[in-house]
Amino acid sequence: MSAAPFDYANLLAPGLPPAAVKYGGFPKYNFVGGHNDSASIPVDGLRAAADAVLAREGRTLATYGLESGPQGYLPLRSFLVRKLKTDAGIDCTTDDILITSGSLQGMDLVNQLLIAPGDTAIIEQANYGGAITRLKRAKANIVGVPVDHDGMSVSALSNALDELAAKGVKPKYIYTIPTVQNPTATVMSEGRRREILALSAKHGVPIFEDECYADLTWTGERPAALRGLAGAGNNQVIHIGSFSKSIAPALRLGYLVASWPLMGNILGLKTDAGSGALEQMILAEYASKHFDTHVKDLRKRLKRKADVLIEALSAEFGTAAEFEKPDGGIFLWVKLPDEVDTLRLFQAAAKAGVALNPGVEWATDQGYSKSRLRLCFANPEEAQIREGVAVLADVCHKEFGVPVRGRNVGRS
Amino acid sequence: MSAAPFDYANLLAPGLPPAAVKYGGFPKYNFVGGHNDSASIPVDGLRAAADAVLAREGRTLATYGLESGPQGYLPLRSFLVRKLKTDAGIDCTTDDILITSGSLQGMDLVNQLLIAPGDTAIIEQANYGGAITRLKRAKANIVGVPVDHDGMSVSALSNALDELAAKGVKPKYIYTIPTVQNPTATVMSEGRRREILALSAKHGVPIFEDECYADLTWTGERPAALRGLAGAGNNQVIHIGSFSKSIAPALRLGYLVASWPLMGNILGLKTDAGSGALEQMILAEYASKHFDTHVKDLRKRLKRKADVLIEALSAEFGTAAEFEKPDGGIFLWVKLPDEVDTLRLFQAAAKAGVALNPGVEWATDQGYSKSRLRLCFANPEEAQIREGVAVLADVCHKEFGVPVRGRNVGRS
Repeated sequence: MSAAPFDYANLLAPGLPPAAVKYGGFPKYNFVGGHNDSASIPVDGLRAAADAVLAREGRTLATYGLESGPQGYLPLRSFLVRKLKTDAGIDCTTDDILITSGSLQGMDLVNQLLIAPGDTAIIEQANYGGAITRLKRAKANIVGVPVDHDGMSVSALSNALDELAAKGVKPKYIYTIPTVQNPTATVMSEGRRREILALSAKHGVPIFEDECYADLTWTGERPAALRGLAGAGNNQVIHIGSFSKSIAPALRLGYLVASWPLMGNILGLKTDAGSGALEQMILAEYASKHFDTHVKDLRKRLKRKADVLIEALSAEFGTAAEFEKPDGGIFLWVKLPDEVDTLRLFQAAAKAGVALNPGVEWATDQGYSKSRLRLCFANPEEAQIREGVAVLADVCHKEFGVPVRGRNVGRS
Repeated sequence: MSAAPFDYANLLAPGLPPAAVKYGGFPKYNFVGGHNDSASIPVDGLRAAADAVLAREGRTLATYGLESGPQGYLPLRSFLVRKLKTDAGIDCTTDDILITSGSLQGMDLVNQLLIAPGDTAIIEQANYGGAITRLKRAKANIVGVPVDHDGMSVSALSNALDELAAKGVKPKYIYTIPTVQNPTATVMSEGRRREILALSAKHGVPIFEDECYADLTWTGERPAALRGLAGAGNNQVIHIGSFSKSIAPALRLGYLVASWPLMGNILGLKTDAGSGALEQMILAEYASKHFDTHVKDLRKRLKRKADVLIEALSAEFGTAAEFEKPDGGIFLWVKLPDEVDTLRLFQAAAKAGVALNPGVEWATDQGYSKSRLRLCFANPEEAQIREGVAVLADVCHKEFGVPVRGRNVGRS
């Protein structure tokens, strides 16, 4: 009708997030994103599950909520009740579980529930970039607490809470990824969990616990979740989890654990008329039979790729790349020499086909994070990991003069 | 850890929506919600599609976005490009399509894109309750425009735009459900569509077109979508649609049509890391082969149920129930005598196991809507429709003295 582009200049709401750019495919060496190992996808199990559950219950697709109501497909919630009891020490019922479209939706719901502009949230200093981005969009003040091998520092958390209280500020939550922390890949000890719970109770500040990687410890063991340690039905801890890392990220399925009446507030915020039914049905059918054996195999595959990445870093970077061996998961948090600015490295590496997460996007503190980076290893094949790290070392040497040596020879 | 409930009194964000109540199952006579006809769910077709697509591409579940990027599974977008051209006269490419988690997510995204508190939105006077609720939550001023058999009144829209312009107010959009309008079930004529496009262009106010019922006209014919009439790539009209009504509501799959760069702004607001992959894959596989034949059969089934509802209303309410015969869809918009307050009827009917939508929740104008109600007919079986209407007539008679006669006998 009109040839000129329709003018939205005076129509867009203020404060929109940055516009997305058009998708251009994955980079050649893709060390970013929570993608998983392709070979581990249980294709045949999912096919059998799809066929069985659709034959049995396919007609329920005619109703919103599959006759299970707005909290999600009941057999999936029943599976989670059993799993959370066994794996995470959480006593709950299906009424305490909300199926979400990925744990990201759980994160969005908790932020909507608690965070108004100007509110304060305490998070781990090195953190999931998406958690930081979301809090910034919600105009929250972010207070970062350092993480060591046993998890969030209790003394630093205690100091932060005291300092905020002295200023009359009550933070809205303490966000933690206790098991396979993102990006440090450490596991918070049970003792540390209990100490943090005590601080939370003392200050009346709830804990927002994100256990999306908790199935992926190399040993298969994990301490009880903070929600479990807090006791049945205790909303001191709001717990979220995911099937993205344990089954497949393209399945947008996660869950949130909270008790009523708080669950009613959270459910009131979920305006999507439910999460995808086929995903829920097929996953519940598959997981109730095969989850444990699948995850056991997946852990082995991921551990092997972690080892390949560590070998490649040692070979190409030598002592210039420092890191703790991960306790599980899909990423490694690497410290390069102080002269390396990983944001500049990120830009130069992108031109060479290597994608990485620069530290400043994955932490609250620029000084701490400037020379750090996150490398995800689950998706690339072993050969790609080796090649990608070699390319990265070359780029880093050209930009910053380090690593000086690689594969025991000097670089030109 | 603590026995007393954790205190959230000073933690919840201000202005939360009402808390949800626990789900208690569907009512016996369920005339609410966009549920569909159970027998029409293409269970065998979905089983075959699931098996084929998982066998072929199951391993891509290891990546977010299935190697299709954040706008959604490419074969589903390709199907939509063909479908929208054929059915809705929309010329677009896969870059212009965003797969959403139901058209509700499309609605949330457009509201986030355009509506700030205090902004004005023009909508049809009788309207989808969820559209009204969302605008109220966004603190928008809602201006209702009456709808007749040919759609939104052009003169009333023109007057509303002039009056707002005189006050210096530029509305953010004109929202319309042109094909099988909710709740009037009318279809906007092509002439009316062109007139509304001209008003939109004159005032620089975009149109937000919701075609979620457009596949369900009884004849299978529909006028070109407003987006189609506006011309290829013209963001004067942002278009949303859904598979909830044509395939199954539990599948949370819809789509949004808008061109870049506006698509980039919308995509920047979609923080869910994609919609469910299994749903997208299975739907694309099924729909690319069977969509047209499926919908042709579905229309017949729905038309039969509409006829059953109309017969039952005529039998039980006689002339006390006034309505236009619907042009398609899953609901009927009914006017009862002026003395009937349908909000009171809704409450009394609920006690008798009959669920209905009271007019005040489905319209912007209380005087117009007080004695109106919406009855959805797709999900209940034919016998339930007949019984439910008989129960409703009894309740209405007891509460309001009308209908005086039913089935040609006086009521006691």
